[in-house]
Amino acid sequence: MSLLLLNNCKMKFTRPPFIFLVFVAFLLSCSQPAEEKADTAPEVPEDPLSSWNPGTAKKSIIEFVRSTATAGNPNFIQESDRIACFDNDGTLWSEQPMYFQLAFAIDRVKALAPEHPEWKEKQPFKALLEGDQKTVLAGGEHALLEIVMTTHAGITSEEFDQIVKNWINTARHPVTGKLYSEMVYQPMIELLKFLRANEYKTFIVSGGGVDFMRAWASEVYGIPSDQVIGSSGKVKYEVVDGRGVLLKLPELNFIDDKEGKPVGIHQYIGKRPVFTAGNSDGDYAMLQYTSTGEGARLGMIVHHTDSVREWAYDRESHIGKLERGLDDAEQYDWILVDMKTDWKWIYPFNN
Amino acid sequence: MSLLLLNNCKMKFTRPPFIFLVFVAFLLSCSQPAEEKADTAPEVPEDPLSSWNPGTAKKSIIEFVRSTATAGNPNFIQESDRIACFDNDGTLWSEQPMYFQLAFAIDRVKALAPEHPEWKEKQPFKALLEGDQKTVLAGGEHALLEIVMTTHAGITSEEFDQIVKNWINTARHPVTGKLYSEMVYQPMIELLKFLRANEYKTFIVSGGGVDFMRAWASEVYGIPSDQVIGSSGKVKYEVVDGRGVLLKLPELNFIDDKEGKPVGIHQYIGKRPVFTAGNSDGDYAMLQYTSTGEGARLGMIVHHTDSVREWAYDRESHIGKLERGLDDAEQYDWILVDMKTDWKWIYPFNN
Repeated sequence: MSLLLLNNCKMKFTRPPFIFLVFVAFLLSCSQPAEEKADTAPEVPEDPLSSWNPGTAKKSIIEFVRSTATAGNPNFIQESDRIACFDNDGTLWSEQPMYFQLAFAIDRVKALAPEHPEWKEKQPFKALLEGDQKTVLAGGEHALLEIVMTTHAGITSEEFDQIVKNWINTARHPVTGKLYSEMVYQPMIELLKFLRANEYKTFIVSGGGVDFMRAWASEVYGIPSDQVIGSSGKVKYEVVDGRGVLLKLPELNFIDDKEGKPVGIHQYIGKRPVFTAGNSDGDYAMLQYTSTGEGARLGMIVHHTDSVREWAYDRESHIGKLERGLDDAEQYDWILVDMKTDWKWIYPFNN
Repeated sequence: MSLLLLNNCKMKFTRPPFIFLVFVAFLLSCSQPAEEKADTAPEVPEDPLSSWNPGTAKKSIIEFVRSTATAGNPNFIQESDRIACFDNDGTLWSEQPMYFQLAFAIDRVKALAPEHPEWKEKQPFKALLEGDQKTVLAGGEHALLEIVMTTHAGITSEEFDQIVKNWINTARHPVTGKLYSEMVYQPMIELLKFLRANEYKTFIVSGGGVDFMRAWASEVYGIPSDQVIGSSGKVKYEVVDGRGVLLKLPELNFIDDKEGKPVGIHQYIGKRPVFTAGNSDGDYAMLQYTSTGEGARLGMIVHHTDSVREWAYDRESHIGKLERGLDDAEQYDWILVDMKTDWKWIYPFNN
């Protein structure tokens, strides 16, 4: 705690005796708990969503969050029930021109290719190594699943974690040339912080791989690993050289998408969310699960409308298709966030 | 924050001018965050484990926890990595003469019997309704599973939650006549609080049903629902009368026992625990997973040695069998907590 704290005090005084200030500073520095709090307390700025343009979306979100955290307000929610769930791809970071995790998987195929000479003749690896994305995509979900399973299994969870960390710190987005972890939405980072400052517990609920996201979610979003829910493969406990490890198996465990999202929320959190943010019809069920609960609830949809600063897509898109969400937003009072008009900046590096 | 804080200051001064004290008090009262901290900081009593008798177990636990939370100590663990996992049955509450969840299931069978006249002729329900426990148990795991599945499914997660809450608030233990929620171990409640006061995140990792435990774990242990990991049945998302609900299906999803415990820890937490407590060989794998990690780790086993105040059982017991844990405790430096000698009191109502 420094004397800057005095600025928070509404009392005004001019030119206090220097010795007095020194003494007060000393007293304050002695009060250790106060000092710790000052260092760690979430500082809520006057405008907690400064990267949002003024408008209905910003206003509604701020009013909702504050009202649910205010005792006596009809919207008030007990702190232990303040659960906020966020989709990841297209909601917290970009998802074009392909899911970032798929870019990771492709990079892994390339890195592993020397150990797998058979891939030169085996689809979808052959096409992928030859840069023939059309053939890869023509293989449909099965081909993509095979790529993900092959590149995400056969190693321990700790080895995988390290591989993802190395990738996220070095790989660059093909369009912007930025690190993938820089392509997060600054307005959403502010929203996460604003919710936490109001004692919400923030969770990721994503169709993406849980082990992939956990490798960087804590650093990038401030969300601890146990608050990341996602799709997963099976793991097996084994003792290798006297050390207990979890071996990642090439077998699906759980798909955290569509109706799987409320299921994942139940399995991991055990409570109906109060606040949920998504961007595609993959989030429809969790938005509906949220908004059909009793008491105050809020759903919001990030609508990708900015073809210049990000991408514009919704009903016709193969990635992040948004159709039911647009049709039913009014029925469920979901806030449609218009990326082009509601967001002052998109990425932290724009700011 | 009050002027009492001044007591923390090592500087001594006598009779400061009254007006000065008033002014300092006013300054301090302006710094809201400091005030909140003083009100909400976990107060660590001088003896954080006052229901534990002095001895190696108590000393080792206190030293370990404090050292891992002390910056500069060779044992220091980053706050975000301070993960503590607790088995439930036999570790946080009693598990004799039968798992409490089984008592709940039996009570449910009795309550549901009028709607199921066919149970009068169908095992294991027939035997159970006739009080013939031997025949029920002779049916083995399959019979028990059928009882649990039948009584835990076919309703929504919210309906089930309410049923468990009603039961835990009224049902009585057959031997002590106490509420089941009173049969928790006071020394372990203190240990949970002590860990949290040192910024550990406390989790339950139990073979018991996750939905069963979540209905009361927050109130009884101070552990929020998303930090409860357990066995689970599958659930299905459905919209009933316009409301999204999760229907509990009579189908196993995950068994959080033995090698399943490190798997559950990985799926839910995504980190290797630093501190783990168990009481049976069902906890062996998670204790081993904990203790074979790098850096400071501690495993402890609650050894049921008190036939007078609780129950005495280990190698030969059908419930909570403890054999490998006893054999290998020394190898892994697991602390064997001798319930008879290490615990001053067992239950809160003894205190």
